[in-house]
Amino acid sequence: MTRLLLLGAGRSASSLIQYLLRYLAAEDWHLTIADVNPAPLQPILAPYGERAQAVAFEIGQQERLHELVAAHDVVISMLPALFHPLVAKACLQHQRHLATASYATEEIRAFEAEARAAGLTFLMECGLDPGLDHMSALPVIEEIRAQGGRLTSFKSYCGGLMAPDSEGDNPWRYKFTWNPRNVVVAGQGTARYIEGGRPRFIPYQHLFRRVERLAVPGYGEFEGYANRDSLGYRPLYGLDGIPTMLRGTLRRPGYCAGWAALVALGLTDDSYRLGNAAGLTWAELIESFLPSAAPGEPLAGRVAAYLRLDPTGEEMQRLNWLGLFTTEPVGLPDATPAQLLERLLTARWQLQPQDHDMIVMQHLFEYLPADGGAVQRRTSSLVVIGDDAVHTAMAKTVGLPLGMAVRRLARGEVAHRGVVVPVHADVYAPILQELAQEYGIEFVESEHALA
Amino acid sequence: MTRLLLLGAGRSASSLIQYLLRYLAAEDWHLTIADVNPAPLQPILAPYGERAQAVAFEIGQQERLHELVAAHDVVISMLPALFHPLVAKACLQHQRHLATASYATEEIRAFEAEARAAGLTFLMECGLDPGLDHMSALPVIEEIRAQGGRLTSFKSYCGGLMAPDSEGDNPWRYKFTWNPRNVVVAGQGTARYIEGGRPRFIPYQHLFRRVERLAVPGYGEFEGYANRDSLGYRPLYGLDGIPTMLRGTLRRPGYCAGWAALVALGLTDDSYRLGNAAGLTWAELIESFLPSAAPGEPLAGRVAAYLRLDPTGEEMQRLNWLGLFTTEPVGLPDATPAQLLERLLTARWQLQPQDHDMIVMQHLFEYLPADGGAVQRRTSSLVVIGDDAVHTAMAKTVGLPLGMAVRRLARGEVAHRGVVVPVHADVYAPILQELAQEYGIEFVESEHALA
Repeated sequence: MTRLLLLGAGRSASSLIQYLLRYLAAEDWHLTIADVNPAPLQPILAPYGERAQAVAFEIGQQERLHELVAAHDVVISMLPALFHPLVAKACLQHQRHLATASYATEEIRAFEAEARAAGLTFLMECGLDPGLDHMSALPVIEEIRAQGGRLTSFKSYCGGLMAPDSEGDNPWRYKFTWNPRNVVVAGQGTARYIEGGRPRFIPYQHLFRRVERLAVPGYGEFEGYANRDSLGYRPLYGLDGIPTMLRGTLRRPGYCAGWAALVALGLTDDSYRLGNAAGLTWAELIESFLPSAAPGEPLAGRVAAYLRLDPTGEEMQRLNWLGLFTTEPVGLPDATPAQLLERLLTARWQLQPQDHDMIVMQHLFEYLPADGGAVQRRTSSLVVIGDDAVHTAMAKTVGLPLGMAVRRLARGEVAHRGVVVPVHADVYAPILQELAQEYGIEFVESEHALA
Repeated sequence: MTRLLLLGAGRSASSLIQYLLRYLAAEDWHLTIADVNPAPLQPILAPYGERAQAVAFEIGQQERLHELVAAHDVVISMLPALFHPLVAKACLQHQRHLATASYATEEIRAFEAEARAAGLTFLMECGLDPGLDHMSALPVIEEIRAQGGRLTSFKSYCGGLMAPDSEGDNPWRYKFTWNPRNVVVAGQGTARYIEGGRPRFIPYQHLFRRVERLAVPGYGEFEGYANRDSLGYRPLYGLDGIPTMLRGTLRRPGYCAGWAALVALGLTDDSYRLGNAAGLTWAELIESFLPSAAPGEPLAGRVAAYLRLDPTGEEMQRLNWLGLFTTEPVGLPDATPAQLLERLLTARWQLQPQDHDMIVMQHLFEYLPADGGAVQRRTSSLVVIGDDAVHTAMAKTVGLPLGMAVRRLARGEVAHRGVVVPVHADVYAPILQELAQEYGIEFVESEHALA
């Protein structure tokens, strides 16, 4: 018997839980799910009798965390990444393995030596991004290398979007399948990448204006903006000398230009409070970001002029669709602009029960073949559509790789110790195989010579 | 005998020291100047014999600070504002009065009750801005109020610039007379002010594009951008209900549009390190902020296109004059963009020994007169020209009001206790009078009815 502890059962955990339950009996697992709100889990776990239980747990409860960790063999955490150092510490103290879908941050890597010495595996970055990105890029990199090819460019994009049937009349073609706050403050700071051997920097104000167009056969066009740090991935992938490397986030065409307008207005700023009343209207809020004007000048026209946008263009249509120029109250007193924008978008971009989300990931490799021929471009693309508003594509692509990693860890099939990310073929190959065979989650590749 | 301690004898302290020395014998003062580099002060103080001494003191020396404070009656601090809470604490412990030209921050105001109970005066904001701004605005506000007028708008601008004879061929018409770093990071965050009863916010990216034109008779045109917080001054001036209030910084016309281009490029960002070599050229640095382009495309043209500027316009001329498109090395390894810009500007905008700087302050009041007549605009302007590169207008306007405040404090003529700023007529009136009579530092007023 292996005792599994899952900390946190939020939105993204549904498919992970389903996966763990699927193998509960076959793997002789006992599963405890510890969440701030365990009640909704009871009916799901009831059919599994003593093998599965849901218990109440709040993140602040340090003693309870230690009790729970001590009473299990493998700890899976879906808590916010912020709390993982605390969880890792408890795992170290009670000598338990850990698996998460979060980044192996500096704080987590600080446990490397101790975890390794204790024979523990802290398996990080086993979700979608980070997770499936590594697992799917590395076999291609390995294959090109094995054939004597030399990689000159690697760009990798991922996005959590809506399936075409669920975009509706929303001109942003976007709804929240993830933490809305993270979407609102996405990209703040300066993005850095490397192109043609030269470092490049994109200040936040330009980020959503400097997008690359991509196409995924059968799913149409997308645009990608650069993630904050594309350079840290070079050593991880053994690509230290690669001239071009960029990681980015995918949106549907036009989203980024619209978002750039929200950024330029100042609506994504989370650094100060407005001192506003909850009854302030959206039009009044928008007005407070503009220079004064002659009385009676329409607000939307002032915004277009201020941002140098076509008054009837797509950007203004998107802003208008959000209701920025209406008398709707902002609804929160003394908030930051980002908090008010998040509140508005949460209403506008809410996933409906019948909606299907869509995960898109695309890797673009360029390499010089060993035979000295023309530069080859290989494209590797994944599209996953959600089943419904619970088993979203997001929940599946985050939860299934993590569940599969846990299954191998629990079986003793992961030999690596210390802080581990899935860049090893013995870790990722069986997961890729299971995703393809059992769930149809599979990358489609194409290759052609560049002119 | 009164024992005065001056902490810090940097660039802005020259006129303060001259003032204190002028009254040394007449006021029966003993003056100790404590600075990290006391040697250059020795020849200046030598003629004053035992009455004046310069001693070595570094900011980190806590014990030494306490010794010095304990051995004097009034402490004057020209240290960076950051250290004033430490200085205030020492003053409290040893029961000494304090005078500075820095803001009465929350941290300093926290000493209010204790200082008051101990019968001490912590006289803050006695320089130029803050300082002379309060001292000069308040008599006008009081006068309008005494006549039954109702203030509807108060805008106040101040800038440390170059006298017309010293601008040379520098198209920015600006040189550093103050901490260069503060100029480079000026305005970061979001500026807030109130206009027509409505709060207004200006995100940093727009700040230098939203300027107001002003004229000072005899000195030509200026432009002003909004300071970070104009609202905190309302209670200080008894103007809580005023519909329009803005404080701003003055530059010569065109400076702000050029600076906005530096901001848009990302060169004022101090939040991350570039990982660059010291030998990186300015052209390479600028290139790293641009999207890639066809080989051979001229850099300046790419920048103009990227920032949507006229390639031969004034903004591009200003950028070009700075040498942004040259092979000059940036000169500092692994620096922030702001550090590199500061280094470049320090070379380009260096005050020459024969240069004269110029302080400009202008208050713009609008009020409804008691008789119900047309709205009146009163303009109150000050221009001070520096004597030379030591007794700059900056040093005079910061140091003389502070010296005069200290003289009154040492004489026991300041009755206010606790944390005090010069908004009281009994504090500011004698200072304004002395500035005008002894130094010709005087505001010129004009008034007319608005159409």
